[in-house]
Amino acid sequence: MTWSEKAWERVSPIYAKILEMPFNAELSNGTLPKEKFIFYLAQDAYYLLAFGRTLSTISSRMQDADLVLAFAGFSTGAIFAERSLHESYFVEFGLDSEVHPRPSTLLYTNYILSEAAYANVEVAVAAVLPCFWIYKAVGDSIFSRQEGDQNPYKRWIDMYAGVEFAIAVEKAITITDQLAALANAETQEKMWLAFEMATRLEWMFWNSAYEEEKWKI
Amino acid sequence: MTWSEKAWERVSPIYAKILEMPFNAELSNGTLPKEKFIFYLAQDAYYLLAFGRTLSTISSRMQDADLVLAFAGFSTGAIFAERSLHESYFVEFGLDSEVHPRPSTLLYTNYILSEAAYANVEVAVAAVLPCFWIYKAVGDSIFSRQEGDQNPYKRWIDMYAGVEFAIAVEKAITITDQLAALANAETQEKMWLAFEMATRLEWMFWNSAYEEEKWKI
Amino acid sequence: MTWSEKAWERVSPIYAKILEMPFNAELSNGTLPKEKFIFYLAQDAYYLLAFGRTLSTISSRMQDADLVLAFAGFSTGAIFAERSLHESYFVEFGLDSEVHPRPSTLLYTNYILSEAAYANVEVAVAAVLPCFWIYKAVGDSIFSRQEGDQNPYKRWIDMYAGVEFAIAVEKAITITDQLAALANAETQEKMWLAFEMATRLEWMFWNSAYEEEKWKI
Amino acid sequence: MTWSEKAWERVSPIYAKILEMPFNAELSNGTLPKEKFIFYLAQDAYYLLAFGRTLSTISSRMQDADLVLAFAGFSTGAIFAERSLHESYFVEFGLDSEVHPRPSTLLYTNYILSEAAYANVEVAVAAVLPCFWIYKAVGDSIFSRQEGDQNPYKRWIDMYAGVEFAIAVEKAITITDQLAALANAETQEKMWLAFEMATRLEWMFWNSAYEEEKWKI
Repeated sequence: MTWSEKAWERVSPIYAKILEMPFNAELSNGTLPKEKFIFYLAQDAYYLLAFGRTLSTISSRMQDADLVLAFAGFSTGAIFAERSLHESYFVEFGLDSEVHPRPSTLLYTNYILSEAAYANVEVAVAAVLPCFWIYKAVGDSIFSRQEGDQNPYKRWIDMYAGVEFAIAVEKAITITDQLAALANAETQEKMWLAFEMATRLEWMFWNSAYEEEKWKI
Repeated sequence: MTWSEKAWERVSPIYAKILEMPFNAELSNGTLPKEKFIFYLAQDAYYLLAFGRTLSTISSRMQDADLVLAFAGFSTGAIFAERSLHESYFVEFGLDSEVHPRPSTLLYTNYILSEAAYANVEVAVAAVLPCFWIYKAVGDSIFSRQEGDQNPYKRWIDMYAGVEFAIAVEKAITITDQLAALANAETQEKMWLAFEMATRLEWMFWNSAYEEEKWKI
Repeated sequence: MTWSEKAWERVSPIYAKILEMPFNAELSNGTLPKEKFIFYLAQDAYYLLAFGRTLSTISSRMQDADLVLAFAGFSTGAIFAERSLHESYFVEFGLDSEVHPRPSTLLYTNYILSEAAYANVEVAVAAVLPCFWIYKAVGDSIFSRQEGDQNPYKRWIDMYAGVEFAIAVEKAITITDQLAALANAETQEKMWLAFEMATRLEWMFWNSAYEEEKWKI
Repeated sequence: MTWSEKAWERVSPIYAKILEMPFNAELSNGTLPKEKFIFYLAQDAYYLLAFGRTLSTISSRMQDADLVLAFAGFSTGAIFAERSLHESYFVEFGLDSEVHPRPSTLLYTNYILSEAAYANVEVAVAAVLPCFWIYKAVGDSIFSRQEGDQNPYKRWIDMYAGVEFAIAVEKAITITDQLAALANAETQEKMWLAFEMATRLEWMFWNSAYEEEKWKI
């Protein structure tokens, strides 16, 4: 069993709960209230910038040129996605270009930024994997469940099923498995824990959007 | 007006709310339920370890020997406090030595760890200042409000009023003002924003303890 | 006078000495001994990997999405250059794919890696600028001085004059000037000092190749 | 065989050469020219500041409170040593308080700073160990070889044999062995390579002092 197979097994209870979230169900069938979608888009743009910075940090900590290149490329991809959100949906919905992160967004972004800067690099890689893999799986599920051409979120959903993102996800899983194969049992366990934590933070991110989470203070 | 005077002014609405929190009121008069106190202690131990690591990062990013020394000394102080929690209260209350952080704890620890690693160093210093200053002010307030010798938290409260911590707080404020005096207006503003964010996270930390916050997933 | 104009002025004595170096003169007229060229290529490959990692670190420390993207893109460019060295010249000359850095190479790579990780980000940007700008200027000079089609290094020299690299250099200078314009005088001075140090290390890098520098121990 | 026993075996040829260096022989018998000693003191002060910063970075990257504390304490020790150089010898010899590092000094300081920021933490620990262990062994050797009360460097030599430093060295070796025992073979090899590189840089540091190394540009 590869590290990633075991990783998926460990997060499957959380993944199952993510699929059942009202946010994703209502996105699929087009009933998601527009303000929840807009909340999500703005927080996602904030997230993507931090995700790109995290991937750049991981790039800097690699010693193999192919891996330095892979993560700099992932970073570029994340920032392009962020830019495209700003240039399409932000304009369409009249959003401010500056986004104020809500607690669950900051909880997730600072978790991955910290892991990238402080942890051993294999653990940092495991911490960013859910944003590739869980996101892709959820996207595929929403794409397959979507109903009717009238879904106002169709354009967004179609993007989920993009080939380019699919290739990046495959590559990220492969790299993580290669690093895990060279790591000892203690490091592999830390990698699983980081993968689980980030998966949990994925759930919280969507939940925050659905609840339109506010700062209590 | 110094940077720190303005900083205090900017957070005074949040500070006022912190003083009014039931956690602090009940700690003062001894009515705080024991399980809330224990929750707090465990999360505080987790926090202090991350605070120490953050202070070490800041130490490493200084170029002046006195500042490298000051922050390495602050780090040492934070870890001694963490150690003393484990060796006294953890034993007294039969707590596990390993602590699982709750969301608000992680939100705060990863915020300061990230700022220390990524931001310009003046901003990182501003982000750790509330844990010195707000904490000290709240501690003094609780100390002055405490009632009766029967307060089960008396030993804890007395520690708040320690001279050693007071000296460290003074030093941290002085250093921050010195760095701010050399910084331009844009950097000073970023420093205030970091100070405000960390003060907000102080409120959330105490609130989390009072609510015995749980992971939703 | 922009920061970069002043920067160029400050390093002009070192730059003049770089242009006069026998390495560059002999590269231009084709008389450079092949073993010195090979030494240079191997060390340059080592350098480019570290340069790419440094650029990724800078990317991670930016807060503006355009700058995160710019430096991740620069990193990608550096690693592509490193890859192309390995896939062309390394094969042609039968070089080992693993390179052992000589002292002057390590002196330069660890300088930029450290600045990127520890210094305020404007200073880190200034420290990597010579590898864009000085390198480009020297390349242009060699290109304009080259003699005859028989020069065995013609292919290499032509690459120096590439349009793609020219665009990256322009962009790096522009970004540095923008950051300098927002910085105070003290930071600008630190930026000039970093720019000068890295220019000095450029000279030492070429000198190391010409002398085929060895470890004394 | 522990990791440290093997480490010592691997660097023994370099260590033997360090003991034979004229710098150390002449320091022992008091014939070292005063200007070489002064050169050394100034570069050592520069080194110690960077060493302290490096130890703070390592402190920040530990997850165990005892190790966070140990490295923050080592950092404090390094900065105290730096301060004491400034307050005693710098005054005695009328040295500038600001030191300009020579190439071999920068080669060493940026090597350890970079390893601390980028490498996995076990490797970073191995990279700083020679500055404890080799330095202590050389100090003990000089102490045991010193001749006569007329040696002008007696005060300096006596400091080498301090009990406090001996305890720190023991602790650093023990910690490194503990980390190595948990690491896999690939990581242990990287640790040995880092230990060897830093030992080589120790030789170069002393050699630089004896030659009163200058910048070529």
